[in-house]
Amino acid sequence: MKISKLLGERIESKPTKSMARSHEYLLRAGYIKQMCNGIFSLLPPAVRVQRKIEKIIREELNKVDGQEVLFPVMMPKELWEESGRYTSIGQEMFRLKDRTGHDMVLGMTHEEAAIHIAKNTVKSYDQLPFMIYQIQTKLRDEARARAGLIRTREFTMKDAYSFHNSYEDLQDYYNKMHDVYERIFKRIGMKNVVSVKSDSGMMGGSINHEFMLLNPIGEDSIVICDKCGYRANNEVATAIIPKNEIETQELSEVYTGEKHSIEEVCEQLNIKSKQTCKAVCYYAVNLKKYVVAFIRGDLQVNETKLRNLAKDEIVPVEIEEGCELIAGNIGPKVFSENVLTFYDASLKDGCFVVGANKNGYHFKGFTFGRDFDVEFNDIAKVEDGQICPNCKEGHVIISKGVEVGQIFQLDTKYTKSMNMTIHNKNGELFYPIMGCYGIGIGRAIACVAEESSDDLGLKWPISIAPWQVYLCPLRVDDENIKKQADALYEKLLADGFEVLYDDRNASAGIKLTDSELMGIPIRVVISPRTLKEDKVEIKIRGEQEASLIELKNLEEKLKEIIEKEKS
Amino acid sequence: MKISKLLGERIESKPTKSMARSHEYLLRAGYIKQMCNGIFSLLPPAVRVQRKIEKIIREELNKVDGQEVLFPVMMPKELWEESGRYTSIGQEMFRLKDRTGHDMVLGMTHEEAAIHIAKNTVKSYDQLPFMIYQIQTKLRDEARARAGLIRTREFTMKDAYSFHNSYEDLQDYYNKMHDVYERIFKRIGMKNVVSVKSDSGMMGGSINHEFMLLNPIGEDSIVICDKCGYRANNEVATAIIPKNEIETQELSEVYTGEKHSIEEVCEQLNIKSKQTCKAVCYYAVNLKKYVVAFIRGDLQVNETKLRNLAKDEIVPVEIEEGCELIAGNIGPKVFSENVLTFYDASLKDGCFVVGANKNGYHFKGFTFGRDFDVEFNDIAKVEDGQICPNCKEGHVIISKGVEVGQIFQLDTKYTKSMNMTIHNKNGELFYPIMGCYGIGIGRAIACVAEESSDDLGLKWPISIAPWQVYLCPLRVDDENIKKQADALYEKLLADGFEVLYDDRNASAGIKLTDSELMGIPIRVVISPRTLKEDKVEIKIRGEQEASLIELKNLEEKLKEIIEKEKS
Repeated sequence: MKISKLLGERIESKPTKSMARSHEYLLRAGYIKQMCNGIFSLLPPAVRVQRKIEKIIREELNKVDGQEVLFPVMMPKELWEESGRYTSIGQEMFRLKDRTGHDMVLGMTHEEAAIHIAKNTVKSYDQLPFMIYQIQTKLRDEARARAGLIRTREFTMKDAYSFHNSYEDLQDYYNKMHDVYERIFKRIGMKNVVSVKSDSGMMGGSINHEFMLLNPIGEDSIVICDKCGYRANNEVATAIIPKNEIETQELSEVYTGEKHSIEEVCEQLNIKSKQTCKAVCYYAVNLKKYVVAFIRGDLQVNETKLRNLAKDEIVPVEIEEGCELIAGNIGPKVFSENVLTFYDASLKDGCFVVGANKNGYHFKGFTFGRDFDVEFNDIAKVEDGQICPNCKEGHVIISKGVEVGQIFQLDTKYTKSMNMTIHNKNGELFYPIMGCYGIGIGRAIACVAEESSDDLGLKWPISIAPWQVYLCPLRVDDENIKKQADALYEKLLADGFEVLYDDRNASAGIKLTDSELMGIPIRVVISPRTLKEDKVEIKIRGEQEASLIELKNLEEKLKEIIEKEKS
Repeated sequence: MKISKLLGERIESKPTKSMARSHEYLLRAGYIKQMCNGIFSLLPPAVRVQRKIEKIIREELNKVDGQEVLFPVMMPKELWEESGRYTSIGQEMFRLKDRTGHDMVLGMTHEEAAIHIAKNTVKSYDQLPFMIYQIQTKLRDEARARAGLIRTREFTMKDAYSFHNSYEDLQDYYNKMHDVYERIFKRIGMKNVVSVKSDSGMMGGSINHEFMLLNPIGEDSIVICDKCGYRANNEVATAIIPKNEIETQELSEVYTGEKHSIEEVCEQLNIKSKQTCKAVCYYAVNLKKYVVAFIRGDLQVNETKLRNLAKDEIVPVEIEEGCELIAGNIGPKVFSENVLTFYDASLKDGCFVVGANKNGYHFKGFTFGRDFDVEFNDIAKVEDGQICPNCKEGHVIISKGVEVGQIFQLDTKYTKSMNMTIHNKNGELFYPIMGCYGIGIGRAIACVAEESSDDLGLKWPISIAPWQVYLCPLRVDDENIKKQADALYEKLLADGFEVLYDDRNASAGIKLTDSELMGIPIRVVISPRTLKEDKVEIKIRGEQEASLIELKNLEEKLKEIIEKEKS
């Protein structure tokens, strides 16, 4: 490709507002163009990267007998009613009416479509297991699109669905897919990826793993043990709370007046926050009830765990005046059926200052078990330095992560709700067991860009670089240089190299800066100086030193570098 | 691929209702599954066909310097307001609101997105010409989806957009793309494709061509001269009407009472329909006016021509009582501004029976020019056997056709309306000149299936067949057969052949029928009978005779057939 005709401009000036590195470079190097909030067009270099990632994914999925299908982007409401997700999924799903007024949805995931294609098509156990996958546009009305391609409202996704006769077979295939995912991320050059146990969210099902790129750009918190290697998303990691060494006290009421916050109460009573029990209030959207989480004052509520316990979507809420909950003085109690209460395990040991459910009053010395009987649950966020919930010896570190892939054991959630049955050996009907497996390709591009970049620009791994070689003649106004560079370009193309040819009559500064910004792995410079010795200068993106090599040895050298970079 | 694990079933029983052949076979052979009206999932064999077509398209477009991009499916209303198409396109466009209430559209074509990506990115004439293309999902809310993949509401499309400095350069590139399209259709094995001049419809612009598969499944009428090779869509073909040899008569009024139709009037007056002038009434949707087309009684109105003259969407209409138009007696006259009138050139010569604009009366001997002065237009459909409008010597034949591709010279329609300017040599701003070029890939699959099939099933051209070889052992319950067939399958795969392996323990009848229904080009049968002589039976789909060949010569023979079929 000649850069003079390549669609896209390289922008020298840096953005004025702070931006994720991948977002900035993908914009400035001419890979993406934003159309509106969370929606982008991909320019030719980005499409080249995407196609290479897709090729790697196809190769790896085909190795485990994946069959490529294509589901529609638009689906009728009825299909999603069968699974129950037409109502259980909220605003993230785009909905519309067709010209006849029929309700349609745009696919944010395709479990329903996978069942639709397999139901009545697959009739017998001996056709199982099989796995189908597609690479297709997905649409999700994200409340908060962010960071360029990291979280968008439209993106290309690989999603796969497997069907099994038994849980053992699913577990077996799930393990295989876990390995496939590790290979895929390795091959596309993403380095710092770990798999962690996670919450299944809207997918449902039991066991599932997220593949997390550990990177400060991430919004997820990943809990990693420094001893046993245990890894989990904080959403599901069990918190092991250091015991409170506080002597038992008698229960007594104390006047706290207008002091409502933990800080104020601690100050008045001269205690630490871990000696208090706070009440954190939410509202369960569909149940239309308050949800109160009681937890030790120094800890934070893990909303995912609470959501799963409440079995409903929850949102933080201000307590209305006049209701049975006395804001600022809420304490353990049996409330009416309009209030759900959950108690964190951190309250098991010790005694606490708690709200007295009476305006202006708290209790001191409140001891669970003695003063009030409750069932404890784990609803606390794990925090840096806590004991590992797995080995109980190491300490955990919390890292930021971006989810780059996720695999799920869906079990029979969808086959049951959508009534897909097949015959077993004895001719009896049963519900096949499903797994599903996703990778967002746009996000993968952004994550590699985030991880593989430096202060000068992108640094694509050679396996997914839009071009392998940036051919950069200096002084193309010199006819001899131009002739030799043109000839070299044609020769490299003919011999199968992927070359971006900087044929512009521009300054060395612009050309070299652009080559670094665009992140092409190998730069070959021809100039009057190098040609005097029949040489070219080769530089690998990210390395300090360039080297001069004989023109006649160039192709051999390129092959060597490409092979080395690939492995 | 082993057929025992291939997703999709082969259905023996034929559909009870009449169906397009491609629709029937794609369903029965396990290529597609319908989800709802006009929306399908593609099963693995269809995806394999689609990927091969996409590969051919990419290769051909890259040869003419096409750069692949990816536009979003979902776009904001504002972008389409810039071009004016947010309002000018009607119900065919899917529209929806996002979670914030913002109006969005789903892409049925991407001129707006092409301008969006190029505007401000391309700044100077020396960056032109360039062509960008994408292969992406399109959504169109067709009023009448039909015939399986022939006309759907969601489909994969290749759309391309070129930008030029001059009309000459556009014409030049347009000619190149015309050749590219011919090569693409040839390579995917579509035989009976012709390019014809056509109407530009919602795209606008001046010159454009449709590529039409001539086939009875088509809904378009293609006019083809038997002498000079002139070809045009009937929508735009000029009609050359044989003259009426009727002597001049004096104008006189005649009572026709309740006789309103051309047939009734002809019967009463004992004349032929070509001696009458009929009035065909429409309603212009946006102008909110009647449109009356006067045309010789034996001819039909070409609604596309009339629409272009009226410069509005038109629909057939019943005349309301009490208005100035007297249904059944409408004749030439200057009406109020609520009625647009157009007169077909067929009325130029001769005299006619026409409505007298008076209840129960017609005129006889009405002669245009003498009795009433009008401007004539060409609004007639061309009919079989008429004189060729090009060479004026040959006669035209009307064939049915399906549009499989279309290329447009858009000129500055979009760059002007969306205000995309770039600098010319002298630093002055100008509007670049655009072309656009589309191929529907789902329809291409259906069209090849329609054209390349027989009473037994599909007959894929080898260039896009899902697999090249159908390996079909008979009697796999015989251990030796199974062992040899398994080994042969592995060997063929290892040597790069694309093989669908019928590993089922099923009857010869079922296996051979399925191989024909699925349309795999080469069938290789191994049976106890052939193996006795160390041979296999080879049969090319669609040929009468099978031949026995030595097992050891099989690969050589396969290569020979594949090469031959490809050329």
